[in-house]
Amino acid sequence: MPARKPGLRALVFDVFGTVVDWRGSIIREGRALGRRKKLEIDWPAFADGWRAGYRPAMARVRSGELPWTTIDALHRMILEDLLRRFRIDRLSGAEKDDFNRAWHRLRPWPDARRGLARLKRGFTIATLSNGNVALLVDMAKHSRLPWDCVLSAELFGHYKPDPEAYLGAARLLGLAPGQVMLVAAHKDDLLAAKACGLRTAFVPRPLEFGPDARVAVRTERAFDVNARDFLDLAARLLPRRTH
Amino acid sequence: MPARKPGLRALVFDVFGTVVDWRGSIIREGRALGRRKKLEIDWPAFADGWRAGYRPAMARVRSGELPWTTIDALHRMILEDLLRRFRIDRLSGAEKDDFNRAWHRLRPWPDARRGLARLKRGFTIATLSNGNVALLVDMAKHSRLPWDCVLSAELFGHYKPDPEAYLGAARLLGLAPGQVMLVAAHKDDLLAAKACGLRTAFVPRPLEFGPDARVAVRTERAFDVNARDFLDLAARLLPRRTH
Repeated sequence: MPARKPGLRALVFDVFGTVVDWRGSIIREGRALGRRKKLEIDWPAFADGWRAGYRPAMARVRSGELPWTTIDALHRMILEDLLRRFRIDRLSGAEKDDFNRAWHRLRPWPDARRGLARLKRGFTIATLSNGNVALLVDMAKHSRLPWDCVLSAELFGHYKPDPEAYLGAARLLGLAPGQVMLVAAHKDDLLAAKACGLRTAFVPRPLEFGPDARVAVRTERAFDVNARDFLDLAARLLPRRTH
Repeated sequence: MPARKPGLRALVFDVFGTVVDWRGSIIREGRALGRRKKLEIDWPAFADGWRAGYRPAMARVRSGELPWTTIDALHRMILEDLLRRFRIDRLSGAEKDDFNRAWHRLRPWPDARRGLARLKRGFTIATLSNGNVALLVDMAKHSRLPWDCVLSAELFGHYKPDPEAYLGAARLLGLAPGQVMLVAAHKDDLLAAKACGLRTAFVPRPLEFGPDARVAVRTERAFDVNARDFLDLAARLLPRRTH
């Protein structure tokens, strides 16, 4: 029987891949740009390349090689490399800036908005993303995501999976780590949160990296909850009457 | 003719007194507590005393005499003093904690929720309060305030009117100070924001300190906008069709 977990007060969500479909959104924005600028580009490969640059760029910040740099600025650095690699030379600075802000316009998975609205009735719901605050706020307005609070690695000067990000989120919410649950499609993120004392909910997103990619979707007993999507997560965490 | 100010992207709001009626809310909570605990107390005087302790307590943080201390913790320190002063000795620790959280349950002025909903259609709307994040998030859920983002002095380690608070808000929103407008009922707050390059909107709240208090309500040419309330502010800032 589903029941609200005792003491659980807030759910914090990984965003890129867990809440929003970054790959489908970037491909769509790329295709629209390509039509306007008459570019013949493999946009799925371009989207994958943009995302592939993200972890190494963050690693340079996490290691101290780079000072604190927002995801907006990291995305822009990666974009410059990709434009060279894909031989795109006809974009103005303003056009590059706008394309970089495609990450502010990512669209949610089909269950996300409705699932969040349900979960919001029982819990505080917040982002806990490596995306910067401005990116997350713009995305929430654009895609009507009903966050109670926008929390970002930017507020802590530490990217996930550094413990400062998970512990900082609990601290700002005025809660003990065990009263907070991270919801994510990525097992490394969840394991780092668990090591900080947060509860964990795994929601696989098998299409995150496209229809042909292999993605870790197997449930794990290490996580407090394994849910099919946000609606299933709401059914597991909330008593029936609040659905 | 009202028109959206060019370049204005976000409105940040002072909260205590500007968005919510702290005095009426604290009096109501005090009276409910008094009935439960059979206390005969002058609750308006108690509310005024609680608020009167707030500026001196923040000043001790701003001067460096105290390390960073959240408003929740400052409210609790002031509460202990007040309980002694009003000779209230029959509250348990849990009852004091709950009464202290009355500040998480403050109710909005009658125009606030509807005005914010309108303004949200044209701008990013965020808190910019000395209240800590947990307090502001709880208040928003309790009073259904539709913030896009909860910003707090806590994120900057500086209470208003320190410039770090105003400039930090613009930075986190990814905007220049001139693209952000502070909305407040307090002229000192607005003048400090203006000195940092933010735009300013004065919304007087003549009843903030009760029906008998004298409050500065006169419009000032120093501010970009003087509005009667949040609905009037929406009428002044938004083109008519979006009302």
